[in-house]
Amino acid sequence: MQDADLIIKNGTILTMDSKNSIFENGFIAIRGDHISHMGTGDMPSIKAAKTIDAGGGLVLPGLVNGHTHAAMTLFRGLADDLPLMQWLENYIFPAERNMDAEFVYTGTLLALAEMILSGTTTFCDMYLFEEEVAKAAKKAGVRCLVGEVLYDFPSPNYGSVGNGLEYTESLIQKWRDDPIVSIAVEPHSLFTCSPELLMASNELALKHRVPLILHVAETLNEVSEIKKKYAKTPIEHLDSLGLLGTHLIADHCVHLGPSDIKKMAEHGAKVVHNPESNMKLASGIAPVPELIKQGVTVGLGTDGCASNNNLDLFSEMDTAAKLHKVHAMDPTVVDAATVLRMTTIDGAKALGLQDITGSLEIGKKADVIVIDTHKPHLTPMYNAVSHLVYAASGNDVTHSVINGKLVMEDRKLLTLDLDEIIARSREKSVQIKSWLS
Amino acid sequence: MQDADLIIKNGTILTMDSKNSIFENGFIAIRGDHISHMGTGDMPSIKAAKTIDAGGGLVLPGLVNGHTHAAMTLFRGLADDLPLMQWLENYIFPAERNMDAEFVYTGTLLALAEMILSGTTTFCDMYLFEEEVAKAAKKAGVRCLVGEVLYDFPSPNYGSVGNGLEYTESLIQKWRDDPIVSIAVEPHSLFTCSPELLMASNELALKHRVPLILHVAETLNEVSEIKKKYAKTPIEHLDSLGLLGTHLIADHCVHLGPSDIKKMAEHGAKVVHNPESNMKLASGIAPVPELIKQGVTVGLGTDGCASNNNLDLFSEMDTAAKLHKVHAMDPTVVDAATVLRMTTIDGAKALGLQDITGSLEIGKKADVIVIDTHKPHLTPMYNAVSHLVYAASGNDVTHSVINGKLVMEDRKLLTLDLDEIIARSREKSVQIKSWLS
Repeated sequence: MQDADLIIKNGTILTMDSKNSIFENGFIAIRGDHISHMGTGDMPSIKAAKTIDAGGGLVLPGLVNGHTHAAMTLFRGLADDLPLMQWLENYIFPAERNMDAEFVYTGTLLALAEMILSGTTTFCDMYLFEEEVAKAAKKAGVRCLVGEVLYDFPSPNYGSVGNGLEYTESLIQKWRDDPIVSIAVEPHSLFTCSPELLMASNELALKHRVPLILHVAETLNEVSEIKKKYAKTPIEHLDSLGLLGTHLIADHCVHLGPSDIKKMAEHGAKVVHNPESNMKLASGIAPVPELIKQGVTVGLGTDGCASNNNLDLFSEMDTAAKLHKVHAMDPTVVDAATVLRMTTIDGAKALGLQDITGSLEIGKKADVIVIDTHKPHLTPMYNAVSHLVYAASGNDVTHSVINGKLVMEDRKLLTLDLDEIIARSREKSVQIKSWLS
Repeated sequence: MQDADLIIKNGTILTMDSKNSIFENGFIAIRGDHISHMGTGDMPSIKAAKTIDAGGGLVLPGLVNGHTHAAMTLFRGLADDLPLMQWLENYIFPAERNMDAEFVYTGTLLALAEMILSGTTTFCDMYLFEEEVAKAAKKAGVRCLVGEVLYDFPSPNYGSVGNGLEYTESLIQKWRDDPIVSIAVEPHSLFTCSPELLMASNELALKHRVPLILHVAETLNEVSEIKKKYAKTPIEHLDSLGLLGTHLIADHCVHLGPSDIKKMAEHGAKVVHNPESNMKLASGIAPVPELIKQGVTVGLGTDGCASNNNLDLFSEMDTAAKLHKVHAMDPTVVDAATVLRMTTIDGAKALGLQDITGSLEIGKKADVIVIDTHKPHLTPMYNAVSHLVYAASGNDVTHSVINGKLVMEDRKLLTLDLDEIIARSREKSVQIKSWLS
């Protein structure tokens, strides 16, 4: 007789481990923060404080949202279908100039509620007032890698440009031993950060052995600006500054040439793909099949809610798989299994968290979600992976466990007060409208 | 004091009428099968048998799925990510050869459950054993335009080729006065139907004043085959056979040239766009912005579940709006309002049902859905249309009224037994696997 804090039983377990092991009629036992047992068929005699019956549904690692700006949930639907600069200059920038810590905390809680409800258990964030994002994630119990956005202009959070790195370093020190919150160094992009800021950011990341995260080659405009200024592609510019490495997470990477992709692969740099945002803003289509072919680890992200406009990784997986097929005019590229890996184990690898999360394996932290398949749109069931990518939506997730803690049960949030979050978010939207009027 | 059978109150009503009228804090009264009152603010004293409180959510016309093969729900996830011919020849065709009436009835009920649960109130179907589709739709209370697929080879339903038109005519006669079921003449495509069959189909459609529906220019293969055989584009071939007209509904229309689009517009032919299927099968991207610019009415469809793999029009709207932006590299094309019209009033126009459904107007049939917006992913609310297209999913629909009859209340299906449908569908999937083994 062994003890466990939580058992999930009676589900098909997709482990997403290196063998893609699947346990039919499986069970997972969780002790403290980690998975202590896993198997199929009759359960060994384990005494558990709580047992969840998956009801014949699917059990899989919690999803990893590789790139978002969580608090931008408060801008959801504020302005769509506009040219990029009009959208930024008339809506996003004026609102962000007025932003404060409480705004970011509220918007992040809203994002966290949505993420838990749609099966995300780890997210990577870049925004302002990231201390608030860390606090909100801690309250919600959601795993995260977060970092303050750094650029060549003053910030409503840390003030003048020089203070950004100091603020980031204080975050790193403060959260160093936290079990679910990790900190990254996050210069915004090559077109908003000087070579000096980029190199200083890299130095800080290397000093503390944390990831360096930035937007790279998101738009054609960016590429031509960098070429004009430095006579280099964005990847060549990163390379010349010494930023390419296994610690680099490059978000978007829409416009890369073959030699850029090779360079990324050689240096072991990671990519996070954001297809819905890249479509909605008409940025372009990232060369994901080529990146994967060259061995680059690619994760999946939703980007912020101003350009998507939700945080549902199921919808993002569906779009990713379909977009690359029509782009390549080949129905076999970026198949469902590839996309599910991008959103679980490869997503974790992209964030450097593969030893902690992204797959269900004994000894790893317990980040687990349960999917209810007793629904018409998930019937019949020939292939669980196909259903997860092409037919399911975030709403089909019923339970979520993060770092061993149950944060959602039967779609009820256990760590957050949903009604209060919705009410406070509505108040903030009134404030935003007053800023823009 | 007036009487109504049903009142829906306390919602923001998006009428989708020609003025795009929106009623904040609005109400709709339904008497028999039609909308008898509509307004905003305090309700006049109407005595209703039943009142639904929309809880501050959105009320809009039920969505129109312009093209599907409903019973193909039973093939959902059976085979994905395969080259088209391998998919058809190894999976779909062998299964269809074994199909019978009961199979189609079961698969259609499964589709109907999914459609009601995701806000669809009208669908257009093309498949085998369409009498069963009509019966299932009638049972579910869902509005439809259905037609037996006709082609140059024997059918497991009507037998030899010649019988298809006779079968279709009997359907037309049988269902002529039905309030929710309409029949169309549906030759499969230009590459599976001889010019003779196409012309005879057209004659039958014109004789009975019903729509003529077929797949047109879905793949590059089809276009080159038709060019090789007839030295014409598919649209030129249709034109030469006299098939272009206001009664023609052309599904897909992925590969059209500028003169094809002009011809379609001149003849008032309609198009149904199926972006997710066209992406998944790598068929291509239909020239929707150009079609709309030339004045062609374009509806939206999911296609069948073997190539999508669900029937959620909310997901389809999101994908449609985003796909055309990235394809045109212009974030302003195919905006949210356009896509919502494609799925409501323009979708109804495409099917010739615009006097009956597709908008909320006094005197029109009452096809109405209610959306719950008290959810994190629909918070805050700046723009209802943006939320419907870019953030909502079918699961947010709580109530559905079709032809005045409540068919879903608080997400509970009132006309269908969901557990029984799921159980029967699972049995059918076992049968399918035995056909393919």
